[in-house]
Amino acid sequence: AQALPKVNGTKVGTMDGLKTEDEDGMVFRQNFSIRSYEIGADRTASVETLMNHLQETALNHVKNAGLLADGFGSTPEMCKRNLIWVVTKMQVLVDRYPTWGDVVQVDTWVAASGKNGMRRDWLVRDSNTGDVLTRASSLWVMMNKETRRLSKIPDEEAAKLDDNTADYIHTGLTPRWSDLDVNQHVNNVKYVGWILESAPLPILETHELAGMTLEYRRECMRDSVLQSLTSVVNKGVGDLATNGFVECQHLLDWRVVVKL
Amino acid sequence: AQALPKVNGTKVGTMDGLKTEDEDGMVFRQNFSIRSYEIGADRTASVETLMNHLQETALNHVKNAGLLADGFGSTPEMCKRNLIWVVTKMQVLVDRYPTWGDVVQVDTWVAASGKNGMRRDWLVRDSNTGDVLTRASSLWVMMNKETRRLSKIPDEEAAKLDDNTADYIHTGLTPRWSDLDVNQHVNNVKYVGWILESAPLPILETHELAGMTLEYRRECMRDSVLQSLTSVVNKGVGDLATNGFVECQHLLDWRVVVKL
Repeated sequence: AQALPKVNGTKVGTMDGLKTEDEDGMVFRQNFSIRSYEIGADRTASVETLMNHLQETALNHVKNAGLLADGFGSTPEMCKRNLIWVVTKMQVLVDRYPTWGDVVQVDTWVAASGKNGMRRDWLVRDSNTGDVLTRASSLWVMMNKETRRLSKIPDEEAAKLDDNTADYIHTGLTPRWSDLDVNQHVNNVKYVGWILESAPLPILETHELAGMTLEYRRECMRDSVLQSLTSVVNKGVGDLATNGFVECQHLLDWRVVVKL
Repeated sequence: AQALPKVNGTKVGTMDGLKTEDEDGMVFRQNFSIRSYEIGADRTASVETLMNHLQETALNHVKNAGLLADGFGSTPEMCKRNLIWVVTKMQVLVDRYPTWGDVVQVDTWVAASGKNGMRRDWLVRDSNTGDVLTRASSLWVMMNKETRRLSKIPDEEAAKLDDNTADYIHTGLTPRWSDLDVNQHVNNVKYVGWILESAPLPILETHELAGMTLEYRRECMRDSVLQSLTSVVNKGVGDLATNGFVECQHLLDWRVVVKL
């Protein structure tokens, strides 16, 4: 709980030869050149790639402020108390996806959120044109590394989606060896791939992901077996009011589908 | 077939502000800062990350030589003839894995290999110390994008590994949406993850991958279902002659395991 004000009050860091400073002097900026292996079959960067860049910028922000200890974004004070940061909510809104060779400029800053929480925001621009590509916002709480208990329990909304209401179910998802991060659990970005696994291919092939809101409730460990549920809330096809947008609700859970 | 001599004879490119030139003036160099999402639970870069950097350097080599057309490493001449490069063999030998924040320097160069083939080599160094981290070598042939036929069929060694001789089998592997590249097939680096899926966890947890040789025989498309077989050729545990090395043979194939 001591760590946050220090991060927040630290002078701006720089990377890749760029300097930035907003009114408060607390924005951290990093540039990324989009690499060939960060684009998909449609030649644009995937939403996972964007989220990887957000994560990398956040960690470098903490590292650059001289507050990075042994953990993945943990400060020395947090390490002493066996605490790590885990994300409980993440919202990403994409205006345009960059392609191979594009350089994106990621700005990030933090604010306190309640007693043991932190809010982190990002703004991603095309470094060439200055156009905004992505806006993102996240909520983080501290978790005890040993008990795996959160310092603050996120509000649980009643999930309306279940095996009976889902339009599409993809079962038997298991982490690959490379999905784990240094906190010994599945990295938050990897869930996005699983979510998209149950999204119907016709929608994936004809639409671009415009935005998503993720709520993280439990950790997924190496031996977890998950199912991915998708419910198409709003088909939007040919519907002028929705402007061609399709809205989906997704759920990743551990429950085994029992067919009676 | 026309494209290769041009690539090979082109002046050295530069990226990230670095210049390099070997005796022949044909080495392309690129630096990579290892990012947080490129490391695994053991805090070092995965072999997939290394292979991604090799791929990116190779593509930038072709791009920098002004020979990149619409395809993924294809030259304009190849595009006209509907040809793309596909890898048929890849050997990677790792001395040391870098960690988050390390900067690696990748050198790559090409040579002709037979009538329609190309050999590409890489040398990866720690940019700080100059220590060699990885050596890699690959063989490429051209494939017709429409017929999906190779310009030259790679030699097929009789695979000794099958369902009966395998020590470990992991079935039901399917590409994730994000595993496809712009050539509409699974990117060659992704196979490594599947191979490691059937490797026994006790070996993965106690050993570091020192090297591997991959032979690519068929393309994996979006709807393929694969199985991954592993045979532990040499256990090497406590064996002074093998110095603790374990040797495994792996096979990825489409065959369904039929249990009689």
